[in-house]
Amino acid sequence: MRYPALLTDLYELTMLAGYFQKGMHEDEAVFDLFFRKNPFKGGYAVFAGLEPALRYLEELRFSDEDLAYLASLGSFKADFLDYLRTFRFTGKLTAPPEGTLIFNHEPLVTVEGKLAEAQLVETALLNIINFQTLVATKAARIHGACGEGVVLEFGLRRAHGPDGGLSAARGAYVGGVRSSSNVWAGQVYGIEVKGTHAHSWVMAFDDELSAFRAYAEVFPDSTVLLVDTYDTLKSGLPHALTVARELRATGHELLGIRLDSGDLAYLSRQARHMLDEAGFPKVKILASNELDEFVIDSIRREGGCIDIYGVGTNLVTAAGEGGGHLGGVYKLVRHAGHPKLKVTSDIAKATLPDRKRLLRLVEPDGSFHQDVICCEGETLSPGDWVYDPANPAHRKKIPAGVRFEEVREVCMEGGKIVKELPGLDACADRCAAQRKKMPNGTLRLYNPHIYKVSISQKLHDLRQCLMEESLKA
Amino acid sequence: MRYPALLTDLYELTMLAGYFQKGMHEDEAVFDLFFRKNPFKGGYAVFAGLEPALRYLEELRFSDEDLAYLASLGSFKADFLDYLRTFRFTGKLTAPPEGTLIFNHEPLVTVEGKLAEAQLVETALLNIINFQTLVATKAARIHGACGEGVVLEFGLRRAHGPDGGLSAARGAYVGGVRSSSNVWAGQVYGIEVKGTHAHSWVMAFDDELSAFRAYAEVFPDSTVLLVDTYDTLKSGLPHALTVARELRATGHELLGIRLDSGDLAYLSRQARHMLDEAGFPKVKILASNELDEFVIDSIRREGGCIDIYGVGTNLVTAAGEGGGHLGGVYKLVRHAGHPKLKVTSDIAKATLPDRKRLLRLVEPDGSFHQDVICCEGETLSPGDWVYDPANPAHRKKIPAGVRFEEVREVCMEGGKIVKELPGLDACADRCAAQRKKMPNGTLRLYNPHIYKVSISQKLHDLRQCLMEESLKA
Repeated sequence: MRYPALLTDLYELTMLAGYFQKGMHEDEAVFDLFFRKNPFKGGYAVFAGLEPALRYLEELRFSDEDLAYLASLGSFKADFLDYLRTFRFTGKLTAPPEGTLIFNHEPLVTVEGKLAEAQLVETALLNIINFQTLVATKAARIHGACGEGVVLEFGLRRAHGPDGGLSAARGAYVGGVRSSSNVWAGQVYGIEVKGTHAHSWVMAFDDELSAFRAYAEVFPDSTVLLVDTYDTLKSGLPHALTVARELRATGHELLGIRLDSGDLAYLSRQARHMLDEAGFPKVKILASNELDEFVIDSIRREGGCIDIYGVGTNLVTAAGEGGGHLGGVYKLVRHAGHPKLKVTSDIAKATLPDRKRLLRLVEPDGSFHQDVICCEGETLSPGDWVYDPANPAHRKKIPAGVRFEEVREVCMEGGKIVKELPGLDACADRCAAQRKKMPNGTLRLYNPHIYKVSISQKLHDLRQCLMEESLKA
Repeated sequence: MRYPALLTDLYELTMLAGYFQKGMHEDEAVFDLFFRKNPFKGGYAVFAGLEPALRYLEELRFSDEDLAYLASLGSFKADFLDYLRTFRFTGKLTAPPEGTLIFNHEPLVTVEGKLAEAQLVETALLNIINFQTLVATKAARIHGACGEGVVLEFGLRRAHGPDGGLSAARGAYVGGVRSSSNVWAGQVYGIEVKGTHAHSWVMAFDDELSAFRAYAEVFPDSTVLLVDTYDTLKSGLPHALTVARELRATGHELLGIRLDSGDLAYLSRQARHMLDEAGFPKVKILASNELDEFVIDSIRREGGCIDIYGVGTNLVTAAGEGGGHLGGVYKLVRHAGHPKLKVTSDIAKATLPDRKRLLRLVEPDGSFHQDVICCEGETLSPGDWVYDPANPAHRKKIPAGVRFEEVREVCMEGGKIVKELPGLDACADRCAAQRKKMPNGTLRLYNPHIYKVSISQKLHDLRQCLMEESLKA
């Protein structure tokens, strides 16, 4: 997907015009993208959307058509429009690899460049990163709830527009949902596509058995039968078993059945029993119907026998308490050689000034101990004090024995991608591996244990100093 | 926006392949698109997304690239792929004009054609109509809560991907939100774009007053100053007043100020007072910060003095109870000459079979009395019995004096658009006019009075007859 240059809020362009006219557009500037609350009231988020964001930055150009439209608005001067004609993003970008577990308050993406270019890209970066990170997080939660089961994403019909479905399929993949019903996502991102059939297939035949037989005849090696059009246990399952026997007689095997209504825990146990008894222990049970991580968790606690969870609406719209959107923001942290702070009476909402490093403290066994945000160029050692950014009265010492891992890396310099970007499988693998390293309780769906993110002494002091300066002014 | 042919769930294509192989693909078929619950637990929805849906149908083609991708999946035969190569949508589509108020259970879009073509388009139609109708409905609720105020949509950064923002701006317009910060939406749909500046503008200057002066210098006739970077009443407002005086001295007027945090009801009253006292009664007050219809309603009840409500996240993600997605479905209602019914033990969930008309009963004063769904070709008269579709024991007679208005019209025949489609302004006007005709209490944000949708005697009888037949089978 090519992102248009006009994928932006008007105010980015009016500010650009202002900086241009005031001669400030080439000032040095650093912006951080971060969010203040983990989505879904959960303990973490999964970073996603970086590659599309980098492609957007690399390809950002104003076409003649774009400039003609901007000129038609009547508020931009000719010299500014000429400036836009040759505008390129030439800045630097630092971010974690996609699939990295990240937390509230952490600087995720840092953009450094000229004030104009770093400001202009705010809206598009937020749009791309906010949504894909949100869906990747939801996917990781759902995937995590499935145990040995797998998830098939099929929410395109309820997604927020065509690209809402496409971007969701990509984000979901990073979070661990590695197949989709969305054929476009298969074509664009190489995601494995899967599907069964609809109730309308059954209704288009004289009876359910004829419908099942017809489907099996056309797709003898990939038939998954939807068994709830009339009555799941009294009609759908017996007909599916008939077709399973007929397939076997011709050297094929029924792949699965799909439950789409009723008590999925109960029906899946009954279906598993009927399939096993009839000699079809390998026929998979796929279930769907308003599933999310909580419903899946509850089905599994009740001994449900589901192999594949089809999740649509709740995944692609990232539904649920604390969901629906990710509130990522993009704040100026350094300008023209000076660290900057958005002052506020509430220290929990104050931004973290200047260029920073994001370090993950790793235990000898590889598990994650906590994250620390420090100043650029600063190094940390065991014994150093670190502070809760929202409540500086809470401080603790870095314990002995931990390793310090850089969470982020420079991905773009001079407007060019300088890292080989991992494929989606590597991103999903990274997410899965990091989830395994999280401390006990931090992945919990309800009331998770809070993974600690602190700031270094030096960063703490810098923030205090800037806040005091600002109050004096 | 051009919609790709592969914007579909895989199962549409596997079903098509099945119908093709069984020689059923040219069977006559009729599908209805409808939803079972009004969004936001509200009393209505606003139909939107028709024009994009029609464009999709008219332009639907499988490219060589698409066919090569489908061939690579290994499950489609060459003759079926050849069939797709020349596939065109040649069917008929009936729908209300965009901006029409619609209700749960009503057939919104009816697609008639060959079984294959009518089935294939299910996913894309649902994707387009579900989301735009959802956002249009949210927009109408928010617009309705504003009284004399107006709404500016600026949710692009929190939208579900780039097109989530673009489609949302279009849907919001139909619902009554006629300006947006989204420059791309301005370019594509001609929506008026508006904007102010960010906190980063203020932070990029030595002090707030310099920042305000600089902005006013660049845009002397369109300056809206964000006054909450430091302290709204003690710093932002006094500095804005200074700039307002300086602008006036040079023959210009400050356009407005923007509040973005704090108690908006209180701050807007104070700001209005300060502006009026200083001789600037025409300076507009714009407010933003997690607004939705309920917050706006509450601000107005407390005497808030806000002229323009900037609404982002909650509008473009259609947030709120009963929001986030619209559960539109697409069901087969007629096949090969026979009316079809999805049988279910719960009559409230049974579909309404066969081709139908959707009639609105209009009082002599123009207000809407209720809607009735009847069979195609059927005419209604005062005194006829009509039934609650979810509870046929509830019936009532059509009163004397009402007019019968057809809610829908044929928009496409033979795969070609046959209606001149109204512009977005006409759609938004239609929505506003229809809202005024709704019975008392049905527009209420909380626990609305339910607008009645009934089915005719003939449709009731047909459904009963098909249900009994199915139970016998």
